[in-house]
Amino acid sequence: MSSSATRSRRDGASSSEPTLHAPPPELLRLLARPARLVLTSHSNPDGDAVGSQIAMYRLLVAAGHRVTVWNLDPVPRHFRDFLADTPWHHGTEPPEELGGLEAVDLVVYMECPSRSRSGLAALERLPAVNIDHHLGNQLYGVVDWVVPASASVSQMALELARALSWPIDAVTAEALLLGLVTDTGSFRYSNSDPAAFRHAAELVALGASPERVAHHVYERRSIASVRLQQAMFSTLRLAAGGRVAVAWLTDEMFDSTAATGDDTEGFVESLRVLDGVEATALLRQIGDGEFKASLRSRGGVDVERVASRHGGGGHRNAAGCRLEGDAEDLAARLASELADAVDAASPGVS
Amino acid sequence: MSSSATRSRRDGASSSEPTLHAPPPELLRLLARPARLVLTSHSNPDGDAVGSQIAMYRLLVAAGHRVTVWNLDPVPRHFRDFLADTPWHHGTEPPEELGGLEAVDLVVYMECPSRSRSGLAALERLPAVNIDHHLGNQLYGVVDWVVPASASVSQMALELARALSWPIDAVTAEALLLGLVTDTGSFRYSNSDPAAFRHAAELVALGASPERVAHHVYERRSIASVRLQQAMFSTLRLAAGGRVAVAWLTDEMFDSTAATGDDTEGFVESLRVLDGVEATALLRQIGDGEFKASLRSRGGVDVERVASRHGGGGHRNAAGCRLEGDAEDLAARLASELADAVDAASPGVS
Repeated sequence: MSSSATRSRRDGASSSEPTLHAPPPELLRLLARPARLVLTSHSNPDGDAVGSQIAMYRLLVAAGHRVTVWNLDPVPRHFRDFLADTPWHHGTEPPEELGGLEAVDLVVYMECPSRSRSGLAALERLPAVNIDHHLGNQLYGVVDWVVPASASVSQMALELARALSWPIDAVTAEALLLGLVTDTGSFRYSNSDPAAFRHAAELVALGASPERVAHHVYERRSIASVRLQQAMFSTLRLAAGGRVAVAWLTDEMFDSTAATGDDTEGFVESLRVLDGVEATALLRQIGDGEFKASLRSRGGVDVERVASRHGGGGHRNAAGCRLEGDAEDLAARLASELADAVDAASPGVS
Repeated sequence: MSSSATRSRRDGASSSEPTLHAPPPELLRLLARPARLVLTSHSNPDGDAVGSQIAMYRLLVAAGHRVTVWNLDPVPRHFRDFLADTPWHHGTEPPEELGGLEAVDLVVYMECPSRSRSGLAALERLPAVNIDHHLGNQLYGVVDWVVPASASVSQMALELARALSWPIDAVTAEALLLGLVTDTGSFRYSNSDPAAFRHAAELVALGASPERVAHHVYERRSIASVRLQQAMFSTLRLAAGGRVAVAWLTDEMFDSTAATGDDTEGFVESLRVLDGVEATALLRQIGDGEFKASLRSRGGVDVERVASRHGGGGHRNAAGCRLEGDAEDLAARLASELADAVDAASPGVS
């Protein structure tokens, strides 16, 4: 068992060699020999999980491996066009093409901080390669390559292809750009470091189109989504002098707008970007009198403490919890709790 | 009079030297000798006009020039924090600090396709340096450095600083990143080429923060803007089976939401990103029964022809015109004309 959970150096513009996050030699050795592989990631895959798997599938197959892509969940609508001819299996049952799990040499986990996060218990007794960038990765592999400093796992797949001298075609490059764009919020999050931009430059030079990626990820908004967001904003409640924003979504709002879960993409963000807002909550109905709250904050405002008070959890600036009651009452309670959190972060201001 | 309106080569990832768009030797010679300069750009300055001027001001002053930044219009609210200690003069009257136009050696125009676009007639008889990336630039300078292939003029300022070995501090780098981010739509437009990403990597390595730029440009949305957009979406009219979207904004909507012109940032885009929409129009009231229409389209759909029919103009995918009448009637008329434009672009589809 070897681990190489390393932080990359952040080299400046003077560096002529943009390679970061060099993959460990034992990983290169392992993947140099053709094998029967399963490729997977976490449940509810995001753009980086999808993009890095598409790319790895194409790279590994071209390198002579037999590869089955198997995830608990299907590919979200916005990412489907990036699949090209990648067969994406989903569900708890092993895909038929595997012909039994005994034949599998290795499971390659991309972007998966723990084995349980894949939701595929059947894979847990097989040897694993673990390629990830989550800080809390559980280092469960025969090889663990975990680089928290990497903005996306897709960039690590690019580095791996380079290290193994695997050629990268335009479809593969675009899948990797999908992962990089989604995990950096279109190069707007703080993880948008020089390496992220340099890797993007390389992928675009290889034929990836930032315009096409943006179109699929950000520019295919349904009318139902507009209607639902209209309804959401009509519930907007501000507190703490505009430093707290809370809103909600009920089943009735989904029904009357014919919107689905996919249509709420960007809703939490649309509250977070309001001028002056430091903490937000979006309540979403998940049952009769039951709601899921997504909490977001800026800087020192700790929403994890608010979430944990209700049995939830997360990180300081992004957390969640479940609540029971009436939407309006719950919104008022969360607004008050978030106002306290904002005050606690900057007691002199309010 | 020398012109170097050149297209840059688009070099691939294999190039170890990311320098593109080399500035002409006569420009380097001209700026190497300290002089009395006026720096300006087009009226209604965008992020690239503001960012490239802030950067050039700092670079030129550090290099020993006496520089006055003078534009017709003030810096838009979202960009003000990037000014740092740059004195930004605006209006038609020469700033007092100039002490008369006779003292001026040279006017440096950044991002200004013609002298008239600056709106400063007083400058038109002075010798000009013309640094721009507009295809139709009128080459009005004693030196013209026009690179249509450059995604932003800010990148050209970066190349200039490099060519002159001028040191670039973090404030300057961030102003340049502002220009690059805004002119590429946060790296989502088709001009997001390898050079754009490589320049971004360099600016971030120099201390620019993509997160801070995004915060100022995209994440300071007023509540009034939300309310106004709610009102705009309530006017949304679809045509041609959802391939055309038209909406309007009236004075009454501005009044009832307490919104201003700044608050409409992103509104045209919010129509353009609707799934399936190929052509859009946003009408905005500019007087009693008078409207300005902003038209946008994708691919082969020609909205310039629609605009020119009403005495307006622009480009194939972005045009504008003025119209007189009732908002709802005008929207219906534009929807019908845009439906024809969509049909003309793909006659077999509808």
